Amino acid sequence: MYMGRVVGSIEASQKDDSLIGRKLMIVQQINSDKEMIRYEEVASDTVGAGIGEYVLLVKGAGARKTNKESSQTRDVVDCAIVGIIDRFNK
Amino acid sequence: MYMGRVVGSIEASQKDDSLIGRKLMIVQQINSDKEMIRYEEVASDTVGAGIGEYVLLVKGAGARKTNKESSQTRDVVDCAIVGIIDRFNK
Amino acid sequence: MYMGRVVGSIEASQKDDSLIGRKLMIVQQINSDKEMIRYEEVASDTVGAGIGEYVLLVKGAGARKTNKESSQTRDVVDCAIVGIIDRFNK
Amino acid sequence: MYMGRVVGSIEASQKDDSLIGRKLMIVQQINSDKEMIRYEEVASDTVGAGIGEYVLLVKGAGARKTNKESSQTRDVVDCAIVGIIDRFNK
Amino acid sequence: MYMGRVVGSIEASQKDDSLIGRKLMIVQQINSDKEMIRYEEVASDTVGAGIGEYVLLVKGAGARKTNKESSQTRDVVDCAIVGIIDRFNK
Repeated sequence: MYMGRVVGSIEASQKDDSLIGRKLMIVQQINSDKEMIRYEEVASDTVGAGIGEYVLLVKGAGARKTNKESSQTRDVVDCAIVGIIDRFNK
Repeated sequence: MYMGRVVGSIEASQKDDSLIGRKLMIVQQINSDKEMIRYEEVASDTVGAGIGEYVLLVKGAGARKTNKESSQTRDVVDCAIVGIIDRFNK
Repeated sequence: MYMGRVVGSIEASQKDDSLIGRKLMIVQQINSDKEMIRYEEVASDTVGAGIGEYVLLVKGAGARKTNKESSQTRDVVDCAIVGIIDRFNK
Repeated sequence: MYMGRVVGSIEASQKDDSLIGRKLMIVQQINSDKEMIRYEEVASDTVGAGIGEYVLLVKGAGARKTNKESSQTRDVVDCAIVGIIDRFNK
Repeated sequence: MYMGRVVGSIEASQKDDSLIGRKLMIVQQINSDKEMIRYEEVASDTVGAGIGEYVLLVKGAGARKTNKESSQTRDVVDCAIVGIIDRFNK
């Protein structure tokens, strides 16, 4: 899993059916010092994360196993926000 | 998921049966400032994206779960365009 | 699999149900000379690893197959600590 | 999917049973200007690609879904050549 | 698949049950000129590779499909040595 910061969102009127009604957030990967690392991705938000919040990200098939999506049978998502990070303990 | 820009397409007469009749687009990954990052890939287009458009990309098994391909039982694709990005909100 | 060092943990009150009660450790990937390489990730701990310990990490679907999680049917985790490294033989 | 160029092959007398009889080609990833990017990998050839040809590569589980391998039940392959690129349209 | 060189092994007394009795080798990824590229990983050896040998590596779910592991139902491994490279043909 990765640490990230929500920096925005995207709008897409034409998209796969499984993405309809889902929040697609732009996330910047960070390290535990909250420094930007690597690059931005787009993640499906399943926990109600807002712009500027630090979040926990899951990639791959795990992103299709969140509670929000359990009722869906078909899902293209490969990245999901699965937690809001309250604190980095070091 | 990744943000990208469609920059072209490839032609391949000799290919896996599951790729016949599909549009194979060359996509350049970008960030939310529309700057090029990382490298180019080839994605199966499922939403009718044209050259120059900004798109949402899915990789891995998720790319085999798009509505366009639901009738197929065997599919080698590991990258798909699943949305056309109208706007980056930041 | 990757070698890593546990450098901390994260706290997240709002998170996917499958993460409740699990230890989410911040791990820094290392090489066999114990030098830091690449970047930090967050891994579910399944072997009781403490801060500073050298650990073996599994990513992707394999992270959802640890003994600790066998009773779960739904799991978003994509990175797990699956061993504590006692020695690097070279 | 990735664009690549076939640069050679490997020989391995001792190998997993599922690799017996398969052509294991060394491929260099390229961009659409045919410039070398990233690094070399080894791919199972399923379309009869020769040294120097430009090819389409699939990674991960998709590489185990090619027509050539449909009769196999067990397969370790994680990268396959699934097309020969005739032309890059830009 | 990737080319690598076996550079050592790790010992871990505390580990996931599915790793008990398996050889966990430290491998350095290489290119076809036997130059070191990228970084080290830990791979489960399934072909009897020794220190210094050049090997073929599989990552992800493919690493859980080797003949050695077919009798196991649960397996966390995400990287396996599946062949010993005798020759690089270029």
